[in-house]
Amino acid sequence: MEVSFLRVRAQIAVLLLCWAGICSGIPDPRQRDSLMQQEASRQTGGAMLLTEAEQRLSARLLKLKQQEMAGPQFPPSMHFFRARPLIQRSPIFSLLQGMPKGAALHLHDLSIVGADWLVKNVTYRPHCYICFTATQSVRFVFSARQPSPLPQCSPWKLLEALRAQMNSTADLDNSLLQNLTLFTSDPEVAYPNQDVVWSKFENTFLAALGLLTYAPVFKDYFYRGLQEFYADNVQYLELRALLPEIYELDGAKHDRAWTLKAYQDVARQFVNEHPDFLGARVIYTVHRGINSSELIDVVKEAMRLQKEFPEVMAGFDLVGREDSGKPLWYFREGLSLPAELGVTLPYFFHAGETDWEGTDTDGNLLDALLFNTSRIGHGFALTRHPLAKDLSRKMGVAVEVCPISNQVMQLVADLRNHPAASLMSEGHPLVISSDDPASFGSSGLSYDFYEAFVGLGGMSAHLGTLKELAINSIRYSSLSPQLKDKALALWQRKWDKFISENSQ
Amino acid sequence: MEVSFLRVRAQIAVLLLCWAGICSGIPDPRQRDSLMQQEASRQTGGAMLLTEAEQRLSARLLKLKQQEMAGPQFPPSMHFFRARPLIQRSPIFSLLQGMPKGAALHLHDLSIVGADWLVKNVTYRPHCYICFTATQSVRFVFSARQPSPLPQCSPWKLLEALRAQMNSTADLDNSLLQNLTLFTSDPEVAYPNQDVVWSKFENTFLAALGLLTYAPVFKDYFYRGLQEFYADNVQYLELRALLPEIYELDGAKHDRAWTLKAYQDVARQFVNEHPDFLGARVIYTVHRGINSSELIDVVKEAMRLQKEFPEVMAGFDLVGREDSGKPLWYFREGLSLPAELGVTLPYFFHAGETDWEGTDTDGNLLDALLFNTSRIGHGFALTRHPLAKDLSRKMGVAVEVCPISNQVMQLVADLRNHPAASLMSEGHPLVISSDDPASFGSSGLSYDFYEAFVGLGGMSAHLGTLKELAINSIRYSSLSPQLKDKALALWQRKWDKFISENSQ
Repeated sequence: MEVSFLRVRAQIAVLLLCWAGICSGIPDPRQRDSLMQQEASRQTGGAMLLTEAEQRLSARLLKLKQQEMAGPQFPPSMHFFRARPLIQRSPIFSLLQGMPKGAALHLHDLSIVGADWLVKNVTYRPHCYICFTATQSVRFVFSARQPSPLPQCSPWKLLEALRAQMNSTADLDNSLLQNLTLFTSDPEVAYPNQDVVWSKFENTFLAALGLLTYAPVFKDYFYRGLQEFYADNVQYLELRALLPEIYELDGAKHDRAWTLKAYQDVARQFVNEHPDFLGARVIYTVHRGINSSELIDVVKEAMRLQKEFPEVMAGFDLVGREDSGKPLWYFREGLSLPAELGVTLPYFFHAGETDWEGTDTDGNLLDALLFNTSRIGHGFALTRHPLAKDLSRKMGVAVEVCPISNQVMQLVADLRNHPAASLMSEGHPLVISSDDPASFGSSGLSYDFYEAFVGLGGMSAHLGTLKELAINSIRYSSLSPQLKDKALALWQRKWDKFISENSQ
Repeated sequence: MEVSFLRVRAQIAVLLLCWAGICSGIPDPRQRDSLMQQEASRQTGGAMLLTEAEQRLSARLLKLKQQEMAGPQFPPSMHFFRARPLIQRSPIFSLLQGMPKGAALHLHDLSIVGADWLVKNVTYRPHCYICFTATQSVRFVFSARQPSPLPQCSPWKLLEALRAQMNSTADLDNSLLQNLTLFTSDPEVAYPNQDVVWSKFENTFLAALGLLTYAPVFKDYFYRGLQEFYADNVQYLELRALLPEIYELDGAKHDRAWTLKAYQDVARQFVNEHPDFLGARVIYTVHRGINSSELIDVVKEAMRLQKEFPEVMAGFDLVGREDSGKPLWYFREGLSLPAELGVTLPYFFHAGETDWEGTDTDGNLLDALLFNTSRIGHGFALTRHPLAKDLSRKMGVAVEVCPISNQVMQLVADLRNHPAASLMSEGHPLVISSDDPASFGSSGLSYDFYEAFVGLGGMSAHLGTLKELAINSIRYSSLSPQLKDKALALWQRKWDKFISENSQ
């Protein structure tokens, strides 16, 4: 290493700083203020000009935040399963619930509706069968007649008949609920490590799958999901969806195009009934457990679907635990296809959802960018990759930050240490989302906005931060420029109303 | 905000990247390799040229690291109190113990010698009195006659007499040990939050103080500390020292100059007896609990001591829990004095040892730099302060990273999430140190080097990383350029020997 060259360069830098008055050892208060303001202006929302009314609300929020920081328990530093009741009582949380938050850009198809609804509504529908697996999970299916048995599952029982045999159905319903969510009172004991929590996580999806892929439930579930996000003041959704085979009561099955069209129909219907909502688009996803030649076929199908359903289909992604799946580079042949053929298939890759540095998985961040991804899902490892971070910033590739997901899946314990705290302080392009709210016992976006605003942002985050996060969610969405303008205008009306109602 | 301007700027950036072939969506493997190499070269040690022998050892280390990452338990993700036995069995740890590590630049006077030695050696010396406080701690004093009672402590008992009354002294010795260290088998239960762990931490120092400020013990303790670091292959120390009043058996007391001179004498003696050791310097520290006019007096004394003892005295710092103490800006009058008077008093400020963002404490990072600090102690919050981070880099102000301390004091749980992992990936100037090894049940530097190399660095850190960390510790020390050259030459001889012995 050229130590002498480095030394000279460092000396020149210090001379320049001294010339700027920074190395005198006697700080000038005005210069200090100016440096603090420079730093503050770099952060997410730091350059946002606020109206007087916005400034009043911002001051009120900071005061409330100070009170929460002074309390005996600070929710963002606790596991969400313990923090949830505290967050629910927080006046900041109520304000965030009422705040128009723009778009939810990182969500998975099987976890957008509270598990309660699945148990209380869906499992009470007629023709619902249940079986019990050897791993203490459950599987469901709707069927007009006795379904054929599943391997490694008890014989199917009609849930209605099972309930009729019981004195109280509360225990059964409660145990079903436990099978559909990770939520538990003692997460450290229930999930001693990432392997255990991921295994339970994947089991909850297998449990829900038989319920959700029944055609009538499938449509109702998505509609209900839109309702829950709408009620949480979210204006638009982008849903990563596996587009699984959907079945009817007689066992008939639908293809992927049917499923995608069903999403489109339900979204259109919902927008018709709620003109102040902007709808939803789908990012077709496949599990990263498949092999590279299977992926080639999936990408070909994705290109066909993208062409056939340009309104509802936003692009493509791979899902499942990054650390145990194959890295993007393994799939390079298939992932290069669209660009080679000159076909548009936007990518929205999960990348860097890992604590392991320097592994193949950790290479996904750079590869996602080289495959020209439109956004990065999670990007938890991005701050450990300065070059990928620079590229992501220069290319305008936003990071989809999901604080509660990263905590529950054990990437980080105290959310003040979430790496996106640094990204926010640098004004890196990012959005906040909730990943799998039903699995984590949250809902909509407000819980994750709370963690981002209070935990990641600390006393530095203010109303401008929230405003930029909401605007970012539209700016970095897959919508066309025209629809983005429409979305921004709609959001702005709601924002102005929110400010006028809360800035007294 | 000028959205349109930002949009245009982003589009130009993307065009440039496309021109460079990065946004085609079809990654060129050679370009990908080159980007990965660019990123790898930015990290700490990434530009270090390694000899063939060094490359062999590096490959061996990476193989060992892969094995540790594949194991059922990964020490850096566990609390150090549980990880310690695993680390002790790690072949990487043995290599690190044998590796010449350069200097330990962040250490506190009262915690450099294993607490075992205090119990087994010091408390067995004659004239040692003990009393028991209401808070279940202990205090000690050496005295020729019965000492006058301490408020809120039981009457003084001669330890020799107490031991004579007992069947077995093992329990007593064990309980004394518990009072002198934080180490415990169940840290989450013993220390449910930062307040509890800090309170116990400060109590261990109060317990040790009466032992260590007895003149003969004081000198022996420092000598023993040098021995322990020397045995761990450390070549030089900079010790943050409170310079407390030192007493004799008859109650006579010495002033600060005596204490500083004692450090100098012991260090000289040790170097005489160990010509391959470079000695130690002292950073005079005061607790940040004092008020601003008291600090003015302390700074004046520090300037006097700096002038009188230029060999042993390196500079000045404030200590104690940053979150509950006063921020540097509160002390600005006193801290500006040396520069105003044109007197040299180098600063080595603790700054950013906090999880709280945007608070007054969090402002210490910028202020430390504005007061022209020579290094930053901890700098845990630095990645949340992009402007202070840039300044620190440009001014060549290294961060003293103490991974185990930050974990035990509950700033971060999983050391893979330590913010210095990002700093290392950016090649930010930093050194590794152990803060208060005796309090944490570690010793020397090797445990912290293990956490930095395996945990913070992951699979990205290699032998070049270790080499640069060792060189950094000399480069960023307070030694004169002449002594730095001497230190580097001495270290290089040891390094070459280490490589030749371990690269077969």
